[in-house]
Amino acid sequence: MVWRSILHILSGLLFILSSALLFPLAWSLYLEDNLHSLFIFHIVGMTLLGGLLKYLNPRPTGISIREGFMTVALSWVIFSAFGALPFRISGYIPSYCDAFFETMSGFTTTGASILKDIESLPKSLLFWRSMTHWLGGMGVIALAVAIFPSLGVGGFQLFKAEVPGPTKDKIYPRISQTAKALWGVYILFTVVETLLLMAGGMDLFESLCTTFGTLATGGFSPRNASIAAYPSPYIHYVIIFFMFAAGASFNLHFLALKRQFHNYWVDSEFRFYTGVAFLAFICIITNRWFSGEHLSEGLWRGSLFQAVSILTTTGFVTEDYARWPFVTQLILLILMFIGGCSSSTGGAIKNVRICILLRYIGSELKKLLHPRGIFPVKIGLKPVPENVLSNTIGFIALYLLLFTLGVVTMAWIGLDMESAVGAVAATLGNVGPGLGSVGPVNNYAHLPDLAKWILSFLMMAGRLEIYTVLIIFYPSFWR
Amino acid sequence: MVWRSILHILSGLLFILSSALLFPLAWSLYLEDNLHSLFIFHIVGMTLLGGLLKYLNPRPTGISIREGFMTVALSWVIFSAFGALPFRISGYIPSYCDAFFETMSGFTTTGASILKDIESLPKSLLFWRSMTHWLGGMGVIALAVAIFPSLGVGGFQLFKAEVPGPTKDKIYPRISQTAKALWGVYILFTVVETLLLMAGGMDLFESLCTTFGTLATGGFSPRNASIAAYPSPYIHYVIIFFMFAAGASFNLHFLALKRQFHNYWVDSEFRFYTGVAFLAFICIITNRWFSGEHLSEGLWRGSLFQAVSILTTTGFVTEDYARWPFVTQLILLILMFIGGCSSSTGGAIKNVRICILLRYIGSELKKLLHPRGIFPVKIGLKPVPENVLSNTIGFIALYLLLFTLGVVTMAWIGLDMESAVGAVAATLGNVGPGLGSVGPVNNYAHLPDLAKWILSFLMMAGRLEIYTVLIIFYPSFWR
Repeated sequence: MVWRSILHILSGLLFILSSALLFPLAWSLYLEDNLHSLFIFHIVGMTLLGGLLKYLNPRPTGISIREGFMTVALSWVIFSAFGALPFRISGYIPSYCDAFFETMSGFTTTGASILKDIESLPKSLLFWRSMTHWLGGMGVIALAVAIFPSLGVGGFQLFKAEVPGPTKDKIYPRISQTAKALWGVYILFTVVETLLLMAGGMDLFESLCTTFGTLATGGFSPRNASIAAYPSPYIHYVIIFFMFAAGASFNLHFLALKRQFHNYWVDSEFRFYTGVAFLAFICIITNRWFSGEHLSEGLWRGSLFQAVSILTTTGFVTEDYARWPFVTQLILLILMFIGGCSSSTGGAIKNVRICILLRYIGSELKKLLHPRGIFPVKIGLKPVPENVLSNTIGFIALYLLLFTLGVVTMAWIGLDMESAVGAVAATLGNVGPGLGSVGPVNNYAHLPDLAKWILSFLMMAGRLEIYTVLIIFYPSFWR
Repeated sequence: MVWRSILHILSGLLFILSSALLFPLAWSLYLEDNLHSLFIFHIVGMTLLGGLLKYLNPRPTGISIREGFMTVALSWVIFSAFGALPFRISGYIPSYCDAFFETMSGFTTTGASILKDIESLPKSLLFWRSMTHWLGGMGVIALAVAIFPSLGVGGFQLFKAEVPGPTKDKIYPRISQTAKALWGVYILFTVVETLLLMAGGMDLFESLCTTFGTLATGGFSPRNASIAAYPSPYIHYVIIFFMFAAGASFNLHFLALKRQFHNYWVDSEFRFYTGVAFLAFICIITNRWFSGEHLSEGLWRGSLFQAVSILTTTGFVTEDYARWPFVTQLILLILMFIGGCSSSTGGAIKNVRICILLRYIGSELKKLLHPRGIFPVKIGLKPVPENVLSNTIGFIALYLLLFTLGVVTMAWIGLDMESAVGAVAATLGNVGPGLGSVGPVNNYAHLPDLAKWILSFLMMAGRLEIYTVLIIFYPSFWR
């Protein structure tokens, strides 16, 4: 392990973090909430630390795979460890464990919160809290299109050629160019959603925070009641639209901006994702109707909002779904496992993997009927190579294995079944609110510190496609 | 679909069923419980029906794969449909749905019961109830070593050559010979366990019934309190030993009877299985100790009994584990998914598959570190072929998918979370007692009929390795 290269890159990350803190500093100065000295102190401190690291580790020798994995995992840890300090030092989150949990939840675009009274925090801190989502979303896009492919994680980049995306486009031949192109889409969406929300009557601060939470599929809101605080149906529909967009592949949006709209229809994953959202919505609405609720516009909107919010792993809340019939909660729980699309900011297993699994089962059944036939699993027109196939199904099994281990650990710590299942599914899948005592109108504050550390770890593991984190604990990684 | 061949085979199964009913008839005549006319009527009726079927479908033209699958699935349905009649006609189980559930639970070696007061049934009927287990166990061995390999289901027969088993032995070259050899082991074990239990003070009737429940990893007991009705530690240890043996591969026992004991150590699956049982036992005992229970012999024995009973998917009960700390119940729930070994009478996912999955994850991590290296997944010395690998991991994913669907359906019907999870895990894994309202001291009687039909289906699906049942619902099966 060449630590010099790793530290060199991490010094760069500290510069990014301190530059990002200029935004909450600006809010602090504008609103005069007396936190500006804290932000200035923090920015100067991190810049100096970054400079020192860069000075001590000047020349980055080429980076190997081992160092690549270490850097990725450490990035999220460093961002959270340092990003948590403003919460802790200001005293608004007195426990460092809580502050770390909240910041990791931000950077992993999870949105699980330990705050009981969000609105009691100064706006500059709340802006920083929402901004961790937005930065995390940027990081996730970079992971999906640039970092994971070069580390060999994920694998579906290898065959997903039905919709080329900017990668195969001659204008953007290099991976870092692709990332920049998709960041452009991300920033454009941020501007558009902010303007649309402001048009609905939100002020600049709230619309920016809400937009950050939406496009990163994060879920932090500056309001205690989450999106339920805004009664306007218009605002709800705008957020539904952008949550759904953020959970879909940014490649498709990039192509759509170049007027190639037909790709949405060509892409199997997008079709599957739309189908899942629609099916979940229909199941929820039917069940709520059968259990005696009136079929009003609010019921339709609330059901659609919650289905999209959970499927995309955003975790915004307009209704207390813990009061819905039990079976609808179970549907939401299943959505927590499916998650967004590849190359989106959404988390969890991802639609393309579920899609491959179902087609694989179909091909196995065909093989049983015709033992000598060959039935390749296809996504679009291209067959999925056998190694990508086992990698994909293996990932699903690994995800469920980690989920099981997490639930057992939470139960050991003392959580009841519903809360343990909800908490682990919601953190590993980067959703945010779970079920039971960590449900939509509750928070994670009451959990013991040990549980918070473990759930922070699960958020990171989920965000980094598990393998990236798991590999560091693998003995031969260190040999 | 050539129905003639299928019906011809099914007529043979009716003869087997009516011959088997001679045993409860003998008990009925011996104990003079006035059920003999029922049994005679039933035997004669089934023999006539079988004869008619055979007469109408005389010449079995060679059987294709399609008919093979249909025959296997229909066998369990026919056995349960006709085997349920004595319960229904005698009036001891007034509802046919209940009688079918109980008999399917018997033939699939599940052991989930709808009887509230088992001891109120006449002994001849109880003998028939336990005998369904024993016959089911015979069927399962035939499936594992003869039927599944010729249908291409399972796949691990293809590479599991570290311990040859009777298949590769020159003395028994043909598959049906293998089945007969392993049936010999099964019958020998039956005799030995019966004698050992009688030596512990049980009467012939109870020791036979208990042995049937043990060796089939079934779990029906002639007593309301299950094995807790027998206070003798000796009896508990005898049952623990034979449950553990029944959950291990009968190939290994066959070789051990030929004095090749070292194969237990050579076989990776057996080592893994032993490790899982030991680890679960240690976790349970530690947890019960920490939660304030006294470390007595009874505590050790009870914990070991329950760990082995659930892991092997037997489902005998000596303690009400629903009162244990929640985390130990969760460990038992995980054991319900792991189950027995291949070529055993145990159910669920099976140890060899879990073993392959874990090694596959290890090899994926190695591949990430050394992208150009080749790291085949090995069981013993032989590498697992890529198609068997994806088949295995795909099976695990399919199992969990069916589990999820089952839980959603049970929740829809109105079960609470714990009972729904417990009921589906315990029926799909052929365990028997679940958690919550279908826990160790409860039964399945209170469930609505729809739930019982669906759980009966899950028992069959779990027993027939899912694919066998799923394929019948696959549209192209009928084309």
